[in-house]
Amino acid sequence: MENYTLIKNGLILTMEKEPFSIEKGCIIIKDALIDFVGRYDRMPEKYAVVSNMNIIDASNCIVMPGLVNCHTHLPMSMFRGLADDLPLEKWLNEHIFPAEAKEVNPESVEKWSFLSCRELLLSGTTTCCDGYFYEKKVAKAALSSGIRAVLGQGVIDFPAPGVPDPLKNIENAVDFVETLSDKSSRLYPSIFCHSPYTCSKKTLQRAKKAADAADILFQIHVSEIKNEKNMIRENKGLSPVRYLDSIGVLDEKTLLVHCVWVDEKDIEIIKKSGASIVHCAESNMKLASGIAPVTKFLKAGIPTGLGTDGSASNNNLDLFTEMDMAAKLHKAALSDPCVMKAEQILKMATTGGAEALGLDKITGSLRSGKKADIIIIDTETPHLVPMYNPCSSLVYSAKGSDVRDVIVDG
Amino acid sequence: MENYTLIKNGLILTMEKEPFSIEKGCIIIKDALIDFVGRYDRMPEKYAVVSNMNIIDASNCIVMPGLVNCHTHLPMSMFRGLADDLPLEKWLNEHIFPAEAKEVNPESVEKWSFLSCRELLLSGTTTCCDGYFYEKKVAKAALSSGIRAVLGQGVIDFPAPGVPDPLKNIENAVDFVETLSDKSSRLYPSIFCHSPYTCSKKTLQRAKKAADAADILFQIHVSEIKNEKNMIRENKGLSPVRYLDSIGVLDEKTLLVHCVWVDEKDIEIIKKSGASIVHCAESNMKLASGIAPVTKFLKAGIPTGLGTDGSASNNNLDLFTEMDMAAKLHKAALSDPCVMKAEQILKMATTGGAEALGLDKITGSLRSGKKADIIIIDTETPHLVPMYNPCSSLVYSAKGSDVRDVIVDG
Repeated sequence: MENYTLIKNGLILTMEKEPFSIEKGCIIIKDALIDFVGRYDRMPEKYAVVSNMNIIDASNCIVMPGLVNCHTHLPMSMFRGLADDLPLEKWLNEHIFPAEAKEVNPESVEKWSFLSCRELLLSGTTTCCDGYFYEKKVAKAALSSGIRAVLGQGVIDFPAPGVPDPLKNIENAVDFVETLSDKSSRLYPSIFCHSPYTCSKKTLQRAKKAADAADILFQIHVSEIKNEKNMIRENKGLSPVRYLDSIGVLDEKTLLVHCVWVDEKDIEIIKKSGASIVHCAESNMKLASGIAPVTKFLKAGIPTGLGTDGSASNNNLDLFTEMDMAAKLHKAALSDPCVMKAEQILKMATTGGAEALGLDKITGSLRSGKKADIIIIDTETPHLVPMYNPCSSLVYSAKGSDVRDVIVDG
Repeated sequence: MENYTLIKNGLILTMEKEPFSIEKGCIIIKDALIDFVGRYDRMPEKYAVVSNMNIIDASNCIVMPGLVNCHTHLPMSMFRGLADDLPLEKWLNEHIFPAEAKEVNPESVEKWSFLSCRELLLSGTTTCCDGYFYEKKVAKAALSSGIRAVLGQGVIDFPAPGVPDPLKNIENAVDFVETLSDKSSRLYPSIFCHSPYTCSKKTLQRAKKAADAADILFQIHVSEIKNEKNMIRENKGLSPVRYLDSIGVLDEKTLLVHCVWVDEKDIEIIKKSGASIVHCAESNMKLASGIAPVTKFLKAGIPTGLGTDGSASNNNLDLFTEMDMAAKLHKAALSDPCVMKAEQILKMATTGGAEALGLDKITGSLRSGKKADIIIIDTETPHLVPMYNPCSSLVYSAKGSDVRDVIVDG
């Protein structure tokens, strides 16, 4: 027998073009899928006779798609606040890498990943895209938490947690991909190469080939800091993006993380390749890595999502504060209060993110046939009244703690 | 009979130099004042025999001074989200000023101020510094809400809510100051001149003289946007700060709001005058007004607090997210992750703010003899574990919604 749920009386933001919002809305969930979205007074009669309907009253609430966090390192919540207010290289080399060598093991990865998933779900994120080591353990945590997740096994040409021999990094990633493939409809395997300066050309190409063979997402940090750009230019004679393009790893199944130090030509190349971008405003700000030209990505029509990055460099996984920060950062940086409008930011955190991950047929908006990944935000709190415009309230006033209910996969 | 409260088992951040933090701490509140701060196992015996002791268990919590929000327009929560993503002048002239003319009346001011006070208290702010019109009504709301507040009656050379005749603006402010003076130990009157471009020299000088006569704080928005700086320079031949200095309104009882467009010489003048500054990172970012050189204010030793500004330009009053934003903004703007460290930001939001308002003998830190303005933050939530450094957790990971208990004036 099918499982039915009715969400009624809320203000629905579908994040679809038409209708974008529905007052006194109604959503019918049938098992894992959305079966109907519309006005409550136009709910088809067939639902009225369903005997086992679960009912969720969303009066005084906003009902919207769960948020999509396109860049996390879930186990790294174990290093939240371990070291702050330092430059990226010092932070990585003197604090994070040594701590990882000491603290990262299968048990700690599973434990802290589970905690991160809880943090994500509690603050309204229903899909995340991760990259780390011992990713099988991350998968175990994600599965039991209930979140939807793209999970990338890390590839790097150095000894890494769980992969002491770098020569086996691809083999290890392929094993992860094969193991995960059957496991659940909520988890999607991926391969995550750390960066163009920590992976050789051969590694990058082999990893991309393995990802293509499995028809999955290939992720990579790129052009995060100025030094990286200078180093790759010195060694390869090209910008990091042009270098990745020249070795054939950019296409519509590639997710480029950060893209802070990119020029017009790089943006053109990314657009042409079909690759997607993740913008991590807070992490880039905190590490003073630079400010990514996100308005140009959007103008070029590159699928662009938002990511919190790991909790060690943010230091939280709340995509609501990330939206607020990203909206304000670019206004300040470009001296233009009209850029990165609330609605645009909200799209990046939902439909844009889903598209960047290649999951736009599955999640990111409320439409009949998509998975029921839905959050309900309680607006009866001092900081959310009055509400002239729900997009403004969600981006500039709301916090993850305002999320009352979270539904993933129905 | 005295009223005693014991707060025990928490991690205390006193925000004093020594001791800055106390594990398994103990605070004794006697009526409105802090009577003892120290380790629980060193609590003086005299407290053990108090029969009517209220006990608050702060296990797994941080206990710290309530936050000080140095710039609000409390009634303006009525315009939260009314208009966003616009330049300051258009936002003010086409949206806020017309809406004020229509919506602002004694009843709406009191109602929305009360809501703002609730928002402030719920998110851990125990002292705010306000400026608006019908400030008597703001005072009524602040008094009944329980918050501590510096309240500035607005002065502007245009017809304003409750002051239709600008010729009576000073008279009106003086009346407010005289009425408020006897009312409560939690409310402090002030006079708030809108800006050097909306108040004449004569108005500024008369307002400052009236503030001096009552020995109270004189507030003014200054150098918020580039146009203002250019306009004053054109009309007066001086930067806004030099102009205010030249007409004699800068001294240690002056609070300068924003100070975005100031140069080295302006900073020197502010320092010499003894005036204080409020930094409103989120409002300045959202309106793309510019980025204030806050690290220079701090280096010069100018008392500098944080302010959210009104809810119409932020759009919330949560000083936790304001701390996070301010910490990250200046790292990004100066390409230096080492500036605006977590502890420094936390000081701005507590002791720095109290000093800027001239209330440093009363609030802003936990010390015997100060008013008991205390907040207790629950750290047993996914986004606050682990805790390597409480300052980092509070600035980079916590949100106003993590505040469990709020005590003002005991």
